[in-house]
Amino acid sequence: MERIKRVGIIGVGLLGSSLGLALKRFTEVTEVLGYDKDNQHIETALEIGAIDNELSIEEGENSNSKENKMLKKLDLVVLATPVGVISKLVQDIQEQLKSGVIITDVGSTKRKVINKIKGQLREDIIYIPGHPMTGSEISGPKGADAYLFENAIYVLTPLQDGNGKFNLLVELLEKIGAKLLFMSPKKHDQIVAAASHLPHIMACTLVDAVGKVAQEDERVFSLTAGGFRDTTRIASGDPIMWTDVCLSNSNFIREMISLFKDRLAEFDSLLADADSQGLYNKFNRIQSLREEIPKKKRGLISPVHEAVINISDHPNAIGEVTSSLGKAGINIVDIGILRVREEGGALRLVFSTAEELEEAKNILIKKGYKLQTK
Amino acid sequence: MERIKRVGIIGVGLLGSSLGLALKRFTEVTEVLGYDKDNQHIETALEIGAIDNELSIEEGENSNSKENKMLKKLDLVVLATPVGVISKLVQDIQEQLKSGVIITDVGSTKRKVINKIKGQLREDIIYIPGHPMTGSEISGPKGADAYLFENAIYVLTPLQDGNGKFNLLVELLEKIGAKLLFMSPKKHDQIVAAASHLPHIMACTLVDAVGKVAQEDERVFSLTAGGFRDTTRIASGDPIMWTDVCLSNSNFIREMISLFKDRLAEFDSLLADADSQGLYNKFNRIQSLREEIPKKKRGLISPVHEAVINISDHPNAIGEVTSSLGKAGINIVDIGILRVREEGGALRLVFSTAEELEEAKNILIKKGYKLQTK
Repeated sequence: MERIKRVGIIGVGLLGSSLGLALKRFTEVTEVLGYDKDNQHIETALEIGAIDNELSIEEGENSNSKENKMLKKLDLVVLATPVGVISKLVQDIQEQLKSGVIITDVGSTKRKVINKIKGQLREDIIYIPGHPMTGSEISGPKGADAYLFENAIYVLTPLQDGNGKFNLLVELLEKIGAKLLFMSPKKHDQIVAAASHLPHIMACTLVDAVGKVAQEDERVFSLTAGGFRDTTRIASGDPIMWTDVCLSNSNFIREMISLFKDRLAEFDSLLADADSQGLYNKFNRIQSLREEIPKKKRGLISPVHEAVINISDHPNAIGEVTSSLGKAGINIVDIGILRVREEGGALRLVFSTAEELEEAKNILIKKGYKLQTK
Repeated sequence: MERIKRVGIIGVGLLGSSLGLALKRFTEVTEVLGYDKDNQHIETALEIGAIDNELSIEEGENSNSKENKMLKKLDLVVLATPVGVISKLVQDIQEQLKSGVIITDVGSTKRKVINKIKGQLREDIIYIPGHPMTGSEISGPKGADAYLFENAIYVLTPLQDGNGKFNLLVELLEKIGAKLLFMSPKKHDQIVAAASHLPHIMACTLVDAVGKVAQEDERVFSLTAGGFRDTTRIASGDPIMWTDVCLSNSNFIREMISLFKDRLAEFDSLLADADSQGLYNKFNRIQSLREEIPKKKRGLISPVHEAVINISDHPNAIGEVTSSLGKAGINIVDIGILRVREEGGALRLVFSTAEELEEAKNILIKKGYKLQTK
């Protein structure tokens, strides 16, 4: 049976390096080569073992043969670069690749790149566009993590079956823990415009508008509750990447902006009319709609087994809670403080099973904690 | 010296009950009485010791005297009810109150209530409108917490000095840990329209618009990253409260919606023109603007001493990290997982001093953790 053994990763930033680590830990890939414009990235990727060797993407230097032996032996090439440079890279390297090689990318939008590549691509190369929905707060290979793809939604927008090559990539990605979704490039771009690009632009516009008022009176920022920081966290994304993403998906994004404007106009006219019942209905409907978000995810992500614990009266509660549960062998999947203050607050714990939640509840109640579960 | 000794709290939900607990723990208040339409709230408030006794707000039943002795002896009345019922309550109880009593409220908007009360208020009552910027994920007296006001911004919009009575309230609130800000009712309403009401309406509109697309294709919610849940968390607020808030501040909210629409139109035209440089400049400016939010808060809230720890390769890392730091006497002020997965991820820890951060760093590096600090 054919297998993917040699992989070249072009761009060893966060995604590329994490993929290298994951492939080496969880799959039968025997060699990972990496290329990056940034030498520091290559050094870090080598150091952490995300790649085995540096990959050259130039033509061979031997005057008798322009062959690049490194590129020639690859079974899979992963383009983990910004969307804007993908098609140029394919053009640059495809002559050096062997017949039947798979190329995939991790670009945030799909149609524009695919349209550029189509027609230019060598017929014996199988190009499978991809988009892993994962990331980290730490950028670059320093943030690399073999578990980055574990339970992450990973969209593939296959163009052709490629004689079973498609399945080879699917199996590889499943081994690193990805949850695969297949859809057309157009559907992908339409969905991410709603799910990712609109939220980003709205968070940015909110910072823009509130910042305008804050310039006139800086107490505005003092009075923003914790909610504002949450609401606008995504507005801190990389400006270069977001410019790239917006330009490669502008028609669907503009459709979403237009839909958003219509819905906002409804709010505005309810306010103008002081329509109490209308406002209540709208807030109520939206509240229910939002409650559906985790529920709809259940097919893909485990249901939430959650406890909220009042820790106001317990000094060093975080340590006490986590170590008691650790001793009992209960794994905490997620943890967070719901209200940040010097002392006390509420601690939110998430477990992967109802049984663990129940056990945790018993342990914590015995220790005198007040808690709510759901 | 005059002191506030007897306090009546009308509405013993989360804020009212927390205030009762805080007054009894941190101040020289000798008696806290509580009233609520909901008997269950009264029972819980009594049980947790947030109030000493139930307060009646009816006229006295003695046919010789309509005097309500409970109301008569109060030095301070706190109206911890929704904005919509405050002026009616003042009208109902003011005849029963003693001369020189202070009344304060915790309403989210100020002008509308104040305009209703003005002109109706007995001249020997000192009314000091307030707005504590605090809350909890757990609503009702069940979520009550003596530390709810600790380090919380608490706005007062005083109408008159009231012969030093104003200072009595200020001292009391400082004792429960509140950080006081004084401003005019108009300025308050203008600032909260930007800092709180606009973000809420935008989060709601985002859920509304994205939800519309999700109804057509439920994969939309699968593809929303964690960011979307953060961005829209505040959209789960109580519809009744938000209807109330919006109607009591609609003109400033509509001004903010108009400003938001202008800024959004800029985005839309940059997209229509495929203006790469313009988009980059806008994203870049907004990113810097957002970075200012915590910095501007420094006067009021301590600077952030933060460590981000890679916990991918450490099973039971949360317990290990928190208990090692606990043993060393290092207090974790905030904790959270930055990327949620079954295994691993990054853990964010916040400490209150640079020294604690440094010490924590040394301990964790010795234990083999990789971490970044800031």
